[in-house]
Amino acid sequence: MKTNALSKMGQRTTEPPISWLMHAALSRPKLISLAAGFTDNASLPVAGARTALNQVFRSPKTGQPALQYGITAGNPALRKLTAEHLRKLDWGGTPCRRPKNQGRRHAVPPEIYSPERLLIASGSQQLLYMTTEALCDEGDIVLVEDPTYFVYLSILQSRGLRARAVRLERDGLDLAHLERVLQSLRHNGELRRVKLFYLVSYFQNPTGVTTSFQKKCGLLKLLKKFERAAGHPIYLLEDAAYRGLRFRKDSKARSSVSTPSPRPSGERAGARGFEFETAGLLTPPLSSLRGREGEVKSALAVPGAAERVIYAGTYSKPFATGVRVGYGILPKPLFAAVKHIKGNHDFGTSNLLQHLVARALASGIYGRHVARLQKRYAHKARVMKLAIKKHFPPAVEWREPEGGLYFWARLPRNVSTGLKSKVFSTALKNDVLYVPGEICYADDAARHKPNHEMRISFGSASEKDIREGIERLGKVLKKCI
Amino acid sequence: MKTNALSKMGQRTTEPPISWLMHAALSRPKLISLAAGFTDNASLPVAGARTALNQVFRSPKTGQPALQYGITAGNPALRKLTAEHLRKLDWGGTPCRRPKNQGRRHAVPPEIYSPERLLIASGSQQLLYMTTEALCDEGDIVLVEDPTYFVYLSILQSRGLRARAVRLERDGLDLAHLERVLQSLRHNGELRRVKLFYLVSYFQNPTGVTTSFQKKCGLLKLLKKFERAAGHPIYLLEDAAYRGLRFRKDSKARSSVSTPSPRPSGERAGARGFEFETAGLLTPPLSSLRGREGEVKSALAVPGAAERVIYAGTYSKPFATGVRVGYGILPKPLFAAVKHIKGNHDFGTSNLLQHLVARALASGIYGRHVARLQKRYAHKARVMKLAIKKHFPPAVEWREPEGGLYFWARLPRNVSTGLKSKVFSTALKNDVLYVPGEICYADDAARHKPNHEMRISFGSASEKDIREGIERLGKVLKKCI
Repeated sequence: MKTNALSKMGQRTTEPPISWLMHAALSRPKLISLAAGFTDNASLPVAGARTALNQVFRSPKTGQPALQYGITAGNPALRKLTAEHLRKLDWGGTPCRRPKNQGRRHAVPPEIYSPERLLIASGSQQLLYMTTEALCDEGDIVLVEDPTYFVYLSILQSRGLRARAVRLERDGLDLAHLERVLQSLRHNGELRRVKLFYLVSYFQNPTGVTTSFQKKCGLLKLLKKFERAAGHPIYLLEDAAYRGLRFRKDSKARSSVSTPSPRPSGERAGARGFEFETAGLLTPPLSSLRGREGEVKSALAVPGAAERVIYAGTYSKPFATGVRVGYGILPKPLFAAVKHIKGNHDFGTSNLLQHLVARALASGIYGRHVARLQKRYAHKARVMKLAIKKHFPPAVEWREPEGGLYFWARLPRNVSTGLKSKVFSTALKNDVLYVPGEICYADDAARHKPNHEMRISFGSASEKDIREGIERLGKVLKKCI
Repeated sequence: MKTNALSKMGQRTTEPPISWLMHAALSRPKLISLAAGFTDNASLPVAGARTALNQVFRSPKTGQPALQYGITAGNPALRKLTAEHLRKLDWGGTPCRRPKNQGRRHAVPPEIYSPERLLIASGSQQLLYMTTEALCDEGDIVLVEDPTYFVYLSILQSRGLRARAVRLERDGLDLAHLERVLQSLRHNGELRRVKLFYLVSYFQNPTGVTTSFQKKCGLLKLLKKFERAAGHPIYLLEDAAYRGLRFRKDSKARSSVSTPSPRPSGERAGARGFEFETAGLLTPPLSSLRGREGEVKSALAVPGAAERVIYAGTYSKPFATGVRVGYGILPKPLFAAVKHIKGNHDFGTSNLLQHLVARALASGIYGRHVARLQKRYAHKARVMKLAIKKHFPPAVEWREPEGGLYFWARLPRNVSTGLKSKVFSTALKNDVLYVPGEICYADDAARHKPNHEMRISFGSASEKDIREGIERLGKVLKKCI
């Protein structure tokens, strides 16, 4: 007799690699973790949350609805505020109408930023999970960036899905590579198993890369092109989790590369991961491609998005990770399916959390907090950059982000950074932790999985610990390379 | 080309029947809903939640952890408090050691009430969902009570699982029927598809029935007996969602039946649903079977439970349904699987909600609230009972609960209460809503699905509305029967 009765999924779902990192951290009190994706403790909005909650609970009339069940799709006020917030991010103050003297292509699709299409979830993570449930059967294929967000890879693994990885360039996806991947899938008769492309579009976890609006347009066009052969729509799941964490302009942060050695893009270079320097980089006219304050527009702003784009966003990272409120905008048939699935998961996200976020948004607490946070992270990123410049050996390439929580560094190809590598064990011995790049790469037989990179986070560590941690890591790298 | 790319699960997951009821309610402003499982609005702990939250946010030191990510299994303090709370419910003040001079059978299993085995979830609903994911593959069979909690039936339907329904008696499950069901499954070679029994053990939704401790022992023994033929463990998933809502003794609530006409139990009667009056009802010695304050012990207290019992509990119903915090105690291999699945769902339940509940528990706010709530619901149940006695025709049988939120009423067998019935449409026309009994019955070809019952809730309606709603419903029943 078997000792347990686990389902195939129960058996497949294993300890995530990051847990091991957490345990390692707990057993070494002096360890500086540059691994965790936690946000900055000191910056958490304790006073803001208290104020907003006291507003919610100032009377039974306002307090009771926050303590009662809501509807599965989410609190109507929060859905309205969120839809409006997204529209403003993409279109600024532009009213939601088709501008005159413009063709259909450039029209603002007002209906896509509608509360009716917006679903609240317990963090955007839950939205990713439910969307994948709604679309993918065991054995189906999901297209992902190479590398990508490793917890999404865990979802795929758990649910028995396959990944095909598409290379990254400095401004996002390598569209030529995507086309070759799609062609090869069509050739193998596997295109019908492809349901979606999962794209972490802003300050990507782990690389920090932001996919340009132009590339989002190209990506959707390519997916559309292969739909007939697939026999069904291929959706774009845009994960914009880090969108709110764009560094403020006054932070003086800018993109730079430590080793200005442009390399040709191509099969061989691509096999090593995304390109730090891409020859022939397209420079789109910013005015047409960027929304408010120069922000890159989301895929929601691409013509035709209403039928194909699933947008996942969150209030957790920009406000408080302990307040798990995320959301999604979905095409109509998918919205219904995911809402019904959510009903089975939990009937709807905690109303208390939704009321808190809605109150913080409406009162300006949220906006002021995010503005402070953007400056704070910009500053911490600068501190990390200066430390890296000072302590990392020149053989290490790295990329400074324009937002988010991560630096991405690449060692020479023959030096592994993996969990069982000399670099990792030496780092641990010297009380500093990073995320090995290899866990961010999908299992994809079409390429050798790179194992010589690392994700370094400035999210949770203090400035002092960032300096000290990078110094320790620099010593390890000098020793091991 | 297909218009969408939904997975099998995405296609199967349909609008839950209860949504239709909600919509019906919204479109009729004068409607009195005795359908919703919402809790009483006026009793929600607005002041208590405000106090507890201000304690949490009194300083950055206490507030920051509530706004940060936690660990997937849940906040250690809350897990400890919850494990302790459960141990006390089952064993009162008895210290957690094996009492001397007692055999193994009656020993207190200290390890089962351990925080290490306890997982926090976003409501017990999420725990039910994840446990089912961890155990059941498409096509597997789950044993359920007949009738049972209809949202759990939605989970089964969505995941492509089959249900086999086991009849209820006044003190819970009909064990003789369970044995026949298991025998027939063995006979058909389907026992290997049976992974668990889902039991709503306290003040069951929808019938109000509480399964006695003696029957829980018998149930586990029976499952064990058939394990060899199944080839794997068969788990008991005990859903104790309503356990905290037991009416206080001073409420004078007691079990009664309006029509004291005992009927023989047997195939024919069973086909009509559970028995209101069961001949030869066992009366277990309360002292050995009941925990603190005469409460029926959970299945965790059954010898051998550590290997086979999954216990799902919640703070939502007894405290605030807008604060979605539930929990589970699970056998070790299952604990790991469900925790990893939870990592993929959402990394862990909102820390803010967990800190709020932990603070409410530790400060006594929770305990005082539950005590008040138990009296309040006992009172509302009395109000409903008196109204039913006054207004319902004698042909309607009904059962008064000892806790929970529901009365269960049975019409003559030839009078349907379903969504398309005359009773339902007449009730709606007269602005009163109930839950048709048929949606609480699993699809099980082994019996004809009963459709002449109704669940009537006193949870959310005011006293005035309970009286008025029952009067309206009484008129409808007199007219239709």
